[in-house]
Amino acid sequence: MKRLCLALCTATGLLAALPASAQFQKPEDAIKYRKASFTVMAAHFGRIGAMVNGKAPFDAKAAAENAALLAALAPLPGTAFGPGTDKGETRAKPEIWTESDKFKAGMTKMTEEVNKLNAAAKTGDLAQIKAAFGGAAQTCKSCHDNYRKD
Amino acid sequence: MKRLCLALCTATGLLAALPASAQFQKPEDAIKYRKASFTVMAAHFGRIGAMVNGKAPFDAKAAAENAALLAALAPLPGTAFGPGTDKGETRAKPEIWTESDKFKAGMTKMTEEVNKLNAAAKTGDLAQIKAAFGGAAQTCKSCHDNYRKD
Repeated sequence: MKRLCLALCTATGLLAALPASAQFQKPEDAIKYRKASFTVMAAHFGRIGAMVNGKAPFDAKAAAENAALLAALAPLPGTAFGPGTDKGETRAKPEIWTESDKFKAGMTKMTEEVNKLNAAAKTGDLAQIKAAFGGAAQTCKSCHDNYRKD
Repeated sequence: MKRLCLALCTATGLLAALPASAQFQKPEDAIKYRKASFTVMAAHFGRIGAMVNGKAPFDAKAAAENAALLAALAPLPGTAFGPGTDKGETRAKPEIWTESDKFKAGMTKMTEEVNKLNAAAKTGDLAQIKAAFGGAAQTCKSCHDNYRKD
């Protein structure tokens, strides 16, 4: 179990540094991958959201589990917006590539806020989780507003 | 970083124990989630596979990162085959529900083999990674053959 923890730690710390390209054989593979990673993130984010919004009973252990998984997943989608992935089955707006520095900063901010949520969830304190959840949710919304077609 | 590791450890150890139902509002949400988690897993499994099969240069660090992420993801899809998720946008065969003990045993076996791959990847020894990769790949193939429509 300890070895697993260490390996996960390595994964979380370093995946963000992987090159954005050269990881996918075809652009459509990258598109499918980033959508899939967002889908899994949304499910686990939503489970914390349900607790934060009083739609599900607060379960500190479940909140911590979901937040830890989110922290592992957060670096993934940003690796899949390489060249040629602006076309096809995607709602990605062209601004992702025309103002890529701003987009990348948004992805970095999202990862940071998810890490804060993870830290908050580990305290088991709902008030702290609520605050951090709000910060993370804002980064989701901001990128969706700016970079995702309706 | 240490806190993150501990949280990830918690997530990996306990997500497998989450109830399979009651995590998704609608059956189609569960179907989308399990497909997405398999998609992300396939991408990272494929990156190790490329090294194992000599199609990409062996990079011990990258192999370990991908294996650690796989270990975090492996428990997820099995939580999304609850009642009502046999219909819709899915290639899941009815046997998943008519012989659910056997299916669940297959999912457990997959998680175990992925954990072995994670342990092997941490050694940095390609021969060990190859052996463990083969074992894990066999569990993928076995479930696909038995439980996924062409």
